Amino acid sequence: MEYPSKLIERAVEEIAKLPGIGKKTALRLALHLLKESENNTLALSTSLVDLRTKTTYCHKCMNIADADICNICASHRRDKSIICVVEDTRDVLAIENTSQYTGLYHILGGVISPIEGVGPSELNIEQLINRINGADEPVKEVIFALSPTMEGDTTAFYLTKKLKEFDVNISTIARGIPIGGELEYTDEITLGRSILSRITYKQD
Amino acid sequence: MEYPSKLIERAVEEIAKLPGIGKKTALRLALHLLKESENNTLALSTSLVDLRTKTTYCHKCMNIADADICNICASHRRDKSIICVVEDTRDVLAIENTSQYTGLYHILGGVISPIEGVGPSELNIEQLINRINGADEPVKEVIFALSPTMEGDTTAFYLTKKLKEFDVNISTIARGIPIGGELEYTDEITLGRSILSRITYKQD
Repeated sequence: MEYPSKLIERAVEEIAKLPGIGKKTALRLALHLLKESENNTLALSTSLVDLRTKTTYCHKCMNIADADICNICASHRRDKSIICVVEDTRDVLAIENTSQYTGLYHILGGVISPIEGVGPSELNIEQLINRINGADEPVKEVIFALSPTMEGDTTAFYLTKKLKEFDVNISTIARGIPIGGELEYTDEITLGRSILSRITYKQD
Repeated sequence: MEYPSKLIERAVEEIAKLPGIGKKTALRLALHLLKESENNTLALSTSLVDLRTKTTYCHKCMNIADADICNICASHRRDKSIICVVEDTRDVLAIENTSQYTGLYHILGGVISPIEGVGPSELNIEQLINRINGADEPVKEVIFALSPTMEGDTTAFYLTKKLKEFDVNISTIARGIPIGGELEYTDEITLGRSILSRITYKQD
């Protein structure tokens, strides 16, 4: 496509580098900025640069934070004997939204994926082990809340082996048919797993 | 949602101001930038600020341009006796992609929409009239290529009245069932219009 201006061409190219945004959407966004006041664009641009250059990570859980220790790790209300291992910050937000979990988190920064060239050394696994090793309060349980994919399972398997030497319980979040889901529309793999991992209510 | 950092909160808010981007997508984009190199974010941010602060508009057709006169208006190959009136730059790109039009354009910058508070004075209508008045080469035809909506039709009606005093032909792009479209899946309004605006091949 031949853009009427080099400036718009460059902006479209840069915006289209973002995941899930194609050239058509990028052009729509660029034209939107041109219609809006200059201050909006400046605020957007500053917030992006600030985010990238000033963001720090919590030394404990490796989550994005404003200080050396994030709010969750610093809170006295959280149960410090449970660590929930997640892929990234979005998972923390999702779990926090449920209000069902009061322990701490550990952000891996991804999952083991040989295809994408992500090995264990690229993830925050060393930090997790150091954390369990040197915790003021002993860690009793590590929960894996990883994606139900091949990569997520591989990562959980790797971590389980790594954590064998520690006296911690290891668990994984339940997988099965979603609440509100209908049996007949659930895929076979999920349904099959939900039968294998059935929960016994009453046992004689 | 409680974000782990004020910086990410501000970035998400700014990104989510863009049309069609919600908070979840904004967070995904922000986290993507955090994972990528700092240079990518700086390039994106600079391109946006440059776009907003340095872009100029063609004095003739009001399209985005790098100079006072855009490439299309400056070209000797274009038929300067036809002006195609469009809403914005994207429409110019779309029509240019068809390679079916060799005339000039005029960008209105929107359509008349009382609901959104856009009146004729907000659009580049005065510039269109001045252009037809003071053209070096007489303008023979004005084509309306506006959206087939109430607002588009209102704008075309308003412009037709405004252009009555000039000796120019006024036309509008054809509306009907799209090429490759199937009759039975076409909505009634489009189908009805396509019958009313039928084209006669042979007349005795």
